[in-house]
Amino acid sequence: MPALSLDFQRLRRAYAHQGLRPQALVAELYRRIAQRGDDHVWLHLLPLEEALKRAREVEARFDRGESLPLYGLPYGIKDNIDAAGLPTTAGCAAFSYVPPESAAVVQLLDAAGALLLGKHNLDQFATGLVGIRNPAGFCRNSFSDEHIPGGSSSGSAVAVAAGLLSFSIGSDTGGSGRVPAACNNIVGLKPTPGVISTRGFVYGNRSFDVAPVFALTVDDAYDVLQVLAQHDPRDTQSSPEPLLAAPPVRPAAFSFGLPPPSQREFFGDLQAARQFERAVGQLIALGGTASEIDLTPFLEAGSLVFDSALVAERWVSYGAVASRRPEAVDPAVLASLRRALDYTAADAFAAQYRLAELRQLTHDVLRGVDLLLLPTCATLPRWAEVQADPQRLNTRMGRYTYFANPLHLSAISVPAGLRDDGLPFGVSLIGLPRAELRLRALARALHERSAQRLGATPHALRPTAS
Amino acid sequence: MPALSLDFQRLRRAYAHQGLRPQALVAELYRRIAQRGDDHVWLHLLPLEEALKRAREVEARFDRGESLPLYGLPYGIKDNIDAAGLPTTAGCAAFSYVPPESAAVVQLLDAAGALLLGKHNLDQFATGLVGIRNPAGFCRNSFSDEHIPGGSSSGSAVAVAAGLLSFSIGSDTGGSGRVPAACNNIVGLKPTPGVISTRGFVYGNRSFDVAPVFALTVDDAYDVLQVLAQHDPRDTQSSPEPLLAAPPVRPAAFSFGLPPPSQREFFGDLQAARQFERAVGQLIALGGTASEIDLTPFLEAGSLVFDSALVAERWVSYGAVASRRPEAVDPAVLASLRRALDYTAADAFAAQYRLAELRQLTHDVLRGVDLLLLPTCATLPRWAEVQADPQRLNTRMGRYTYFANPLHLSAISVPAGLRDDGLPFGVSLIGLPRAELRLRALARALHERSAQRLGATPHALRPTAS
Repeated sequence: MPALSLDFQRLRRAYAHQGLRPQALVAELYRRIAQRGDDHVWLHLLPLEEALKRAREVEARFDRGESLPLYGLPYGIKDNIDAAGLPTTAGCAAFSYVPPESAAVVQLLDAAGALLLGKHNLDQFATGLVGIRNPAGFCRNSFSDEHIPGGSSSGSAVAVAAGLLSFSIGSDTGGSGRVPAACNNIVGLKPTPGVISTRGFVYGNRSFDVAPVFALTVDDAYDVLQVLAQHDPRDTQSSPEPLLAAPPVRPAAFSFGLPPPSQREFFGDLQAARQFERAVGQLIALGGTASEIDLTPFLEAGSLVFDSALVAERWVSYGAVASRRPEAVDPAVLASLRRALDYTAADAFAAQYRLAELRQLTHDVLRGVDLLLLPTCATLPRWAEVQADPQRLNTRMGRYTYFANPLHLSAISVPAGLRDDGLPFGVSLIGLPRAELRLRALARALHERSAQRLGATPHALRPTAS
Repeated sequence: MPALSLDFQRLRRAYAHQGLRPQALVAELYRRIAQRGDDHVWLHLLPLEEALKRAREVEARFDRGESLPLYGLPYGIKDNIDAAGLPTTAGCAAFSYVPPESAAVVQLLDAAGALLLGKHNLDQFATGLVGIRNPAGFCRNSFSDEHIPGGSSSGSAVAVAAGLLSFSIGSDTGGSGRVPAACNNIVGLKPTPGVISTRGFVYGNRSFDVAPVFALTVDDAYDVLQVLAQHDPRDTQSSPEPLLAAPPVRPAAFSFGLPPPSQREFFGDLQAARQFERAVGQLIALGGTASEIDLTPFLEAGSLVFDSALVAERWVSYGAVASRRPEAVDPAVLASLRRALDYTAADAFAAQYRLAELRQLTHDVLRGVDLLLLPTCATLPRWAEVQADPQRLNTRMGRYTYFANPLHLSAISVPAGLRDDGLPFGVSLIGLPRAELRLRALARALHERSAQRLGATPHALRPTAS
């Protein structure tokens, strides 16, 4: 059992054919968690007794014949997502509250038979892409104690990469559901805003926050998406529009965009640059035809997230605590939040108008290809470097991710092998709004071609029948 | 010919069977316009020679067999809409510019064979519902020199009511396409935001401004809507979604909502109150079943237009001139615009979140009935009264209209007979987003039942075969 991989396929097989029961799995996972000691992955872990009780309940539902598409799959949530009766801290003790009701995603996952084990560390207020912005301590990259785990959903990604959970739910405003996936060799599926309800989340930019899925494999992430992609009439941002289904982009003959060489910026990280070129080669080997796409409007949209009045959406959520208890807020986070105060209401509308124009421009461009291929992160710094230069190095992490949500795009970050120095690297497949299902087959093919192991576990990725 | 009515049916008959040609019509209309003297309806009238030249061109296209759905129908536009080569003033000389390109609506109307004669007076910057906020002078109500024409599309409505044009295009943010229609006994069809392109308009609230159609009859207004309801990829607010077609709300058996007696506020205007009760009676006589709808969330949405950060959208458009040349701005308009400065970017997002919630609430309510029936205006004051108390009396005019655009609703204001004192009165049929086509049959039936004459012309409304 210590050797059991938590990917859905193998775990389901263990349940179906090897006599495993959720209670036994929970006991095993708590042993693994205890073995890691104080790794700062969890901000709240359910007491073992409570987790076992929930496992028993799921077993009983299963035994009664209930249809449970995520039966017995252990998961965690980022600590800016409500779970009834557990504290929501968003990484700031002064902000903490205990919600009476679970977030919509937690309700759906529980109904589907998944098992919540706890809540994960994050960059405070989900403001950051480095994963080290929590005054209470931060977790390390699964492949290197010296490197950042990536953020803001740091604990969510590390827990999956470490084999403590089958999947986890984070939040993604500017890349928080993709950057830590890439930094830890796992999959991060970031749906289009409005596809998954964010009711019960602590909002960053409420108008384009999304709930991403972290998982060991592409298929696992999509299994969770299928459960969560439901219109929520109680969430004003939730859309009743269905996902685009056809035609899927399949290996053999497809087109993909990528930036011209002058825009392939890696901030001097030659390992990352080389790994990206390998991924491009693999996409071509899979049957892709590359064409260059000018990133200028994408980068402009990305810069609006923090360099415009759009940053004030965060002030609506965290402004009260940042004003009242500034000492409780990470200095880099506080500096970001306070920029909201520089902007007027007219600035907010002007920024939204520009964003609407950029949406139109970029969607027109993306209609010319099946997908856009980008590195998920330009580089992977050491946490001590980030501590020494917190704003600049943080911004670098978002170069290729900031724009996707304000532009209403779909995206999935897929592991693209390990760099020559042994650190993980991921690429993002980016599609039009609500095109996530179209990206699935190709994301799986690329993952199967490039990945050596699942996350930081010893387990290999097993190709699945397509 | 002086007796010729300009409604589409009679004008088309005159073209088809009575030997009328557009050039002759133009000459006749310029005589009518000259006869009225300086009525402040026009801010720019095409020189007669230019109008004749355009009429000749349309005749030539017609003679070549071109399909021209609006052949020879004379129209005007509000002076916050661009027509290539003519000044756009928005009622403020200091703001004036000459656009190189016509607004999308003008391009479509010209392509359909309609004849632009000129540009109309308005409340400066389309900010007001009274029609008297232009320092250069204002037009009078078509039925009374002492009463306001209603605004902000004052000249647009008066020109149609006076029989100078077959139709006109205004702008409507908080009621400017419905209030002056009701004040002048004509039809004002206000589509859902996004249905008609507003490219080439001077924006008020760009996120929910619309282009309304003023016409003498319901069918005329819908004929124009059919030409204009086209997705415009160059307008970020334009929507590609089709209009809801079925099922139309037909006389015989339908349900309509109306406010409970405690919310039927007429500010002491007993004539208006009585006329509204008559309209309710006529809707019941047409087969309608009334039920009461609490207006609270509608009124809250309406109040956000001016009592929240939403007012700052106007500052994006007019802030520069209001700052640089305050003496060129009407004092009541300036006071409204300056409120934008009280709001932060965070306020703007908070107002938008609340609006999104109210949208959901009110749409749920409206799904329970076929339409909501309201007075278009609660009262019709004298212009001297408004001059003495400009803000308060202006706000009263918008009680029943402010909310429709921020809530993304469709609406049509239909004449509902003349009050006992001989002044016009209108009611609004209000529907869900993109439901304008569903309202058509009932709007026509109500108009035919209650109207005595077309606008302020001597012509009677002729019932049309349905």
